Amino acid sequence: MIYDTVIVGNGPAGLTAAIYAQRAGLNTLVIAESPVDGGQIATTYEVDNYPGMKGIGGMELGMKFREHADQLETRFLEDRLVEIRDEGDHKTLILDQGEAVETKTVVLALGANHRDLGVPGEKELVGAGVSYCATCDGAFYRKKIAAVVGGGDVALEDALFLSRFAEKVYLIHRRDAFRGAKVLVDQVLAKENIEVIYDTVVEKVCGNIKVESLDLLNKKTGEKRSLPVNGVFMAVGTAPNVDVKGLPQQDEKGYIVADESCQTKTAGIYAAGDLRTKQLRQVITAAADGANAITSVQRYLTETLS
Amino acid sequence: MIYDTVIVGNGPAGLTAAIYAQRAGLNTLVIAESPVDGGQIATTYEVDNYPGMKGIGGMELGMKFREHADQLETRFLEDRLVEIRDEGDHKTLILDQGEAVETKTVVLALGANHRDLGVPGEKELVGAGVSYCATCDGAFYRKKIAAVVGGGDVALEDALFLSRFAEKVYLIHRRDAFRGAKVLVDQVLAKENIEVIYDTVVEKVCGNIKVESLDLLNKKTGEKRSLPVNGVFMAVGTAPNVDVKGLPQQDEKGYIVADESCQTKTAGIYAAGDLRTKQLRQVITAAADGANAITSVQRYLTETLS
Repeated sequence: MIYDTVIVGNGPAGLTAAIYAQRAGLNTLVIAESPVDGGQIATTYEVDNYPGMKGIGGMELGMKFREHADQLETRFLEDRLVEIRDEGDHKTLILDQGEAVETKTVVLALGANHRDLGVPGEKELVGAGVSYCATCDGAFYRKKIAAVVGGGDVALEDALFLSRFAEKVYLIHRRDAFRGAKVLVDQVLAKENIEVIYDTVVEKVCGNIKVESLDLLNKKTGEKRSLPVNGVFMAVGTAPNVDVKGLPQQDEKGYIVADESCQTKTAGIYAAGDLRTKQLRQVITAAADGANAITSVQRYLTETLS
Repeated sequence: MIYDTVIVGNGPAGLTAAIYAQRAGLNTLVIAESPVDGGQIATTYEVDNYPGMKGIGGMELGMKFREHADQLETRFLEDRLVEIRDEGDHKTLILDQGEAVETKTVVLALGANHRDLGVPGEKELVGAGVSYCATCDGAFYRKKIAAVVGGGDVALEDALFLSRFAEKVYLIHRRDAFRGAKVLVDQVLAKENIEVIYDTVVEKVCGNIKVESLDLLNKKTGEKRSLPVNGVFMAVGTAPNVDVKGLPQQDEKGYIVADESCQTKTAGIYAAGDLRTKQLRQVITAAADGANAITSVQRYLTETLS
């Protein structure tokens, strides 16, 4: 059997694609490694910006997406995609457990992941003061003290964003100059409530129930100190989940090149959600991609293949 | 006072923009004509494709968006935008009741509306068999008899979409040939369960509690007849709500030209939701636009104005 479309991934993009594909009557399969994944939201304590569901837990929102897809009788297969073989009018998907699945179209919705800083205390305090998304969690830091770790555009933007709410923002950077955009650097330096700590790395995130302080090391002077904070935002990069052979064209960071239509540079293959090139990676924009990808799939099935 | 951003409209795009703007700490105002509008969804009986909220009522979903914005203490003003005056680094918005509001940026989220066919029985049976969106309501017509009225791409696509579920689909067109894409016409003509009725107009939608039949008139022969159907999809066009002076560049149908970033051809003005040029007009894609528009607003405030 050849599927109309196979969706790879079960975060907001993949499950929205499943909802739209089932409603469109397409012969659809969703491949994902675990039954309820939900993507990055599953590890988010509280999602406050999915419109209509203020303050919902990340795992709960992931479950709601999955239930919606289940109610439409979506077919799921638990496995991992290893390779895509483009056979022209169809694609063969090679899975980790050896199965080969044939499909007319593929929607890649594997998501992206923040990079961990990789220090003691970080994993233990995720959701309890350790965050990877200022847009998501910044509003919780009104009148509090926050730190941002990183030196690129995202770190600078996060520090500026947080400075609107927080009483004080520390921007901790391992080097003595920023690699981010000059306009952002100038604004960070001009902000009274942002203090930049150069040449410094975080050695440990400290706290029992929640973040209380950071252990810092100045790499130039060798000086160590403890910095009291209510929370810390790790802005040391994100990377798309693209450990698959035979992917369509990617950009220099590995993101799959696709616009709003989710059409990649390979006919019949679509990229939806955080793993495609886009300006804003959020639950709501990932879900919209799922809908757009299936619209593009339907157009391809109708106009090109038939 | 000059606002950071004024959002015009309170459908899914406008209210999501409000949620993101409030969370970003922007000095924000939402202008809309009625307290709970919700855009087109408010008149939709059931919204089945907003991920995570299967089968929610249109008005209920609109209320949930509004509550989310209210919980973030969004400021609303009930009025109608009449004119935008671009004063360079700020815009002046002239409102119907004479007030002038100054703002650094504007997010236009006025939505679009389907065109009514304009026949007796149509308005009375909206949501009871009369629909304007096959993608939204098509799945309710499994094994039933549906009619589509129109002759363009959307009418052809709607007929094809419905033919996957419905036992029988009538496509009623006032002319003797379709103006839609040939590939779509060929597929419609090849489908066994689609019957095209040419040269014919609907004179009345009949039914008490729900749609039961259509009164048809063949304009060439003058013949009248009653066609039993379970529902009818009006695909006679949509139009953006753009009755405002001083809008940014529009396309030939009146939609405001903007890509996924929602940036229009005028600096500082953004278009989010159904009123911008895009491939898929749905609740989820409108909401994503609201998030993207505010991201673009923040970038503009940071990089251009400051």
